[in-house]
Amino acid sequence: MTNKGRLIIISGPSGAGKGTVLSEVFRSNPNLEYSVSATTRAPRPGEKDGVNYFFVTREEFEQSIARGNMLEYAVYCGNYYGTPADFVERQRLRGRDIVLEIESCGARQVKEKCPDAISIFIMPPSLSELEKRLLGRGTEAPEVVAARIARAKEEIDSADFYDFKVVNDNVVRAAEEINEILKNN
Amino acid sequence: MTNKGRLIIISGPSGAGKGTVLSEVFRSNPNLEYSVSATTRAPRPGEKDGVNYFFVTREEFEQSIARGNMLEYAVYCGNYYGTPADFVERQRLRGRDIVLEIESCGARQVKEKCPDAISIFIMPPSLSELEKRLLGRGTEAPEVVAARIARAKEEIDSADFYDFKVVNDNVVRAAEEINEILKNN
Repeated sequence: MTNKGRLIIISGPSGAGKGTVLSEVFRSNPNLEYSVSATTRAPRPGEKDGVNYFFVTREEFEQSIARGNMLEYAVYCGNYYGTPADFVERQRLRGRDIVLEIESCGARQVKEKCPDAISIFIMPPSLSELEKRLLGRGTEAPEVVAARIARAKEEIDSADFYDFKVVNDNVVRAAEEINEILKNN
Repeated sequence: MTNKGRLIIISGPSGAGKGTVLSEVFRSNPNLEYSVSATTRAPRPGEKDGVNYFFVTREEFEQSIARGNMLEYAVYCGNYYGTPADFVERQRLRGRDIVLEIESCGARQVKEKCPDAISIFIMPPSLSELEKRLLGRGTEAPEVVAARIARAKEEIDSADFYDFKVVNDNVVRAAEEINEILKNN
C-alpha cells in the first residue's frame, strides 16, 4: 500500500526568493507536484483543461463551494479561482505530495479544512536584508523600496499561523531546511 | 498655475523586473508619487492612516464605491482594497504625478474611469528570456519554472489594453523608455 502523500502549503512575500528556493526543493523531491486550480475564467488559446486549470462554469464552481469541495478560493476580476479538494485528495491517495503555492489568505483557509497540511512560510533573512536586496545596486528610489518593504511586512505579519518559517538567508540552506521538514512530517 | 499631474498605471508579471525598473524611473522623476490605497482591514501596529493605507469601515468603503469614488477595487481575504479617486485627484491638482502599481484587473477598471491615465505594462524580453531568468543557474526544477512561465503568460495575455508595453531587456534602457513616455504624454 502506498503511503498517503502530504499536502504542502508554501507562501512568502515577494522578494523573499521563494521561487528559487522552491526550485531547489522540487529538484531534490521528485515526488512533489503542483496542485491544479479550478477557475471560471475562459481558457486562453493553448491552455489545457486539467493542466493549466480545471475550467468550470460559475454554477459548477459555486456548487463545489457549497458541498465543501474548495480547499480555498478567491475572486479575481470577477472570476473564481480555487483549489479543488477532490483533485488534491486523489493525488495524495496515489502517494503524491501536493504543493500549493498560495498567499496567506488561501493558506489559512486550507489549514482550517486540512489541519494535517504542512504550511511553510519563506521569509527574507530580515527586513533590513530584504531592504538591501530590494535596493540592489544601491541606486534605487527610496519610495519604491519603502512601498515594497511595507507590502512584505504586511505579508510577514499575517504569517503567524504557519507551522514552519524558513529564513532564506541562503538558497541551498533554506531548501535543505525545507527538505528536513518534509522528511520529518 | 500648476499643470495637472498625470495618472500612471504600471503593471507587469512577476519576473519581469518591474521593481528595479520602477526604482530607476522614480529616481529620475522626483515628481512621481505612489498612490495610497483605502482598505477595510484593521491597521497593524506601526501602520499610519493616510500613509500605509486609508483605513475605513466597510460602510464607508461601500458608500465610496456607490458614489463612484473608487477608481478600482478588489476583495482580498474578506477585506476591500481600492484606489480612492478623490485622493488621486487632489494630488494631481497639486501637480503631482501619481503612480498606481496594480494588476491588470485593476488597471482595466482605472483605464475605463480615467481614459487619460497612462498605462504601461513592463514585459520580460520574451518568454524564453523569462524562462532563462527563472531558471537562474540552470539547476532549477522544470515544474517550478513551467508554473511560473504559465502565470507570467497569463498576465501578458491580459495586457492588450495597455497604452504602452516596455520590454525590460535592460533596466536602464527600459527606465529610459518609460521616461520618454512620461515626457511625451
